Amino acid sequence: MTRLKLFIANALLLTLLVGACTAARGPGPADPLPSWHEGATRQTILSFVADVSDPAHPDFVPAAERVAVFDNDGTLWSEKPTYFQLLFIFDRIRSMADAHPEWRSTQPLQAVLENDMEGLAAAGTEGLVTLAMTAQADLTTDEFAAMVADWTATAKHPVSGRPFTSMVFQPMLELLDYLRANGFSVYIVSGGGIDFMRPWVERVYGVPPENVIGSSPELRYDMRGEEPVIMRERAMHFINDKAGKPVGIQRFIGRRPILAAGNSDGDYEMLEWTTAGDGPRLGLLIHHTDAAREWAYDRESSEGRLDRALDAAPGYGWLVVDMTRDWAVVFPPP
Amino acid sequence: MTRLKLFIANALLLTLLVGACTAARGPGPADPLPSWHEGATRQTILSFVADVSDPAHPDFVPAAERVAVFDNDGTLWSEKPTYFQLLFIFDRIRSMADAHPEWRSTQPLQAVLENDMEGLAAAGTEGLVTLAMTAQADLTTDEFAAMVADWTATAKHPVSGRPFTSMVFQPMLELLDYLRANGFSVYIVSGGGIDFMRPWVERVYGVPPENVIGSSPELRYDMRGEEPVIMRERAMHFINDKAGKPVGIQRFIGRRPILAAGNSDGDYEMLEWTTAGDGPRLGLLIHHTDAAREWAYDRESSEGRLDRALDAAPGYGWLVVDMTRDWAVVFPPP
Repeated sequence: MTRLKLFIANALLLTLLVGACTAARGPGPADPLPSWHEGATRQTILSFVADVSDPAHPDFVPAAERVAVFDNDGTLWSEKPTYFQLLFIFDRIRSMADAHPEWRSTQPLQAVLENDMEGLAAAGTEGLVTLAMTAQADLTTDEFAAMVADWTATAKHPVSGRPFTSMVFQPMLELLDYLRANGFSVYIVSGGGIDFMRPWVERVYGVPPENVIGSSPELRYDMRGEEPVIMRERAMHFINDKAGKPVGIQRFIGRRPILAAGNSDGDYEMLEWTTAGDGPRLGLLIHHTDAAREWAYDRESSEGRLDRALDAAPGYGWLVVDMTRDWAVVFPPP
Repeated sequence: MTRLKLFIANALLLTLLVGACTAARGPGPADPLPSWHEGATRQTILSFVADVSDPAHPDFVPAAERVAVFDNDGTLWSEKPTYFQLLFIFDRIRSMADAHPEWRSTQPLQAVLENDMEGLAAAGTEGLVTLAMTAQADLTTDEFAAMVADWTATAKHPVSGRPFTSMVFQPMLELLDYLRANGFSVYIVSGGGIDFMRPWVERVYGVPPENVIGSSPELRYDMRGEEPVIMRERAMHFINDKAGKPVGIQRFIGRRPILAAGNSDGDYEMLEWTTAGDGPRLGLLIHHTDAAREWAYDRESSEGRLDRALDAAPGYGWLVVDMTRDWAVVFPPP
């Protein structure tokens, strides 16, 4: 081989290696948030993420501490006409009703079977807990996961007619990806059931089951013949809402997040806990202002009521995301 | 520049890049378990990890499902003369005693202050819970973490005179590293307090706080003036022991592990749950057989009692690690 040929072979190998190393570092600088309109909201998010990820910036945060927490209902997916898990519970009660004729005259089950929304409202929180336990207890965790997977694969949203898992917010999907691409660990911190989310959030949000924090019933390890199972009991273990959210974060993560996103007063304490820490912090509140493309609601809503947190936002420096103003699209294309 | 000089420059750059790419891929195939003696135990571990990590092997398991869980007391560090957290609790009660003269005549506190081991034994489990609450409640989570960090930095083991965090098992440190190098997620699943472990396990075991599952008290989100805090309450929330271990695993991870390691009957259900799953599974039981280098105990011990699980091991195919036979060294060099 001549020196020239050696040189060319060498140069080719070099090119291949540079390519391999570049590929290992991930894609180049395309717009990470294409569904967010230009403006102060988008710019605040971009600057925050750039600063905490830049080792040369005074606000740099080591990757292990770049923890971001997201509420689910109303923050990552819609919550109207009511919480989607409640619609799952109603569907399941209807599917069980043939085996329980007594439910036709027992409240609040009767109200579900008769689609009696006033009767349901009258049953209050206690009635909802009864419905949740009836629909979701006395099952193994595997049985419950299979039911949720089946429901998310087949059930349709009553207004849009689309699968519930397509009623997620495209700008938020981009934000989750953008954070992960910048070394963040992304967690869901929801008042909803932890095992209602786990079967589908990895596929839909890219969040693995171990990064989901939610409400949970008592669980009991038991044997079915030779086979060990984990049973869902008829009692709550932990309600991951309001002041329960920072508690759930401490239990599961053991680190204080540097970014928290929510949309309701149920997220107040999570944002407060997150943004009260030292160093750079970002609190986001999604404000549902868009009746044309999604729903418009805040202070008077029974789902995702946003009142106290909206008043507190300026004082805490929480960034209020106005859905109409800030989002170029709401849902992913069908 | 002549072609020769260009060639040399190119070759140097190539060498640097090959070096950088190799470094990014991690070290070469050095022995991953140098502190494990050659033999069936070591070979079973090596084969299991190689098989589940090899996409061409029928036992291949995707990386996301390569979850490994480890008990702490007696599995990753020693638990004699008694559980180290209990020694922390005793130290803390002694340090608080001056402000509480009534403790000198109140059991079981008096027994701690007088080093009265018979009195402590007489106080039973209820007495221990009282001591744990006295020492570890009515503190913020940050205050408690600081106390634990201070204790692990200063306290000395009563027999070895070494820091408690150096009483860890070198062969197990190598196993944790080896598993992570092969794409496993490694969790600690301990009956000990979750927030007693988090301040030091990342430094000592390479396990981040979010991968620690343990027992925990009730927590309460509260305000101290303008500052939000999370308070440790005087009541237990969850005991992560025995049948609680698979429950804790389901709560925190939401996936069934494929490898579980323990050393006592408290780990029975965790190993049972892990190894009853489909596909390749490995259960490990550390048998403390080495009175010369560590301690020798099993069926009669009050710490780490290993009786029922030892009898069950052959039937379940759990691998019993004999400390004397299988470990070339026990503790890391000072």
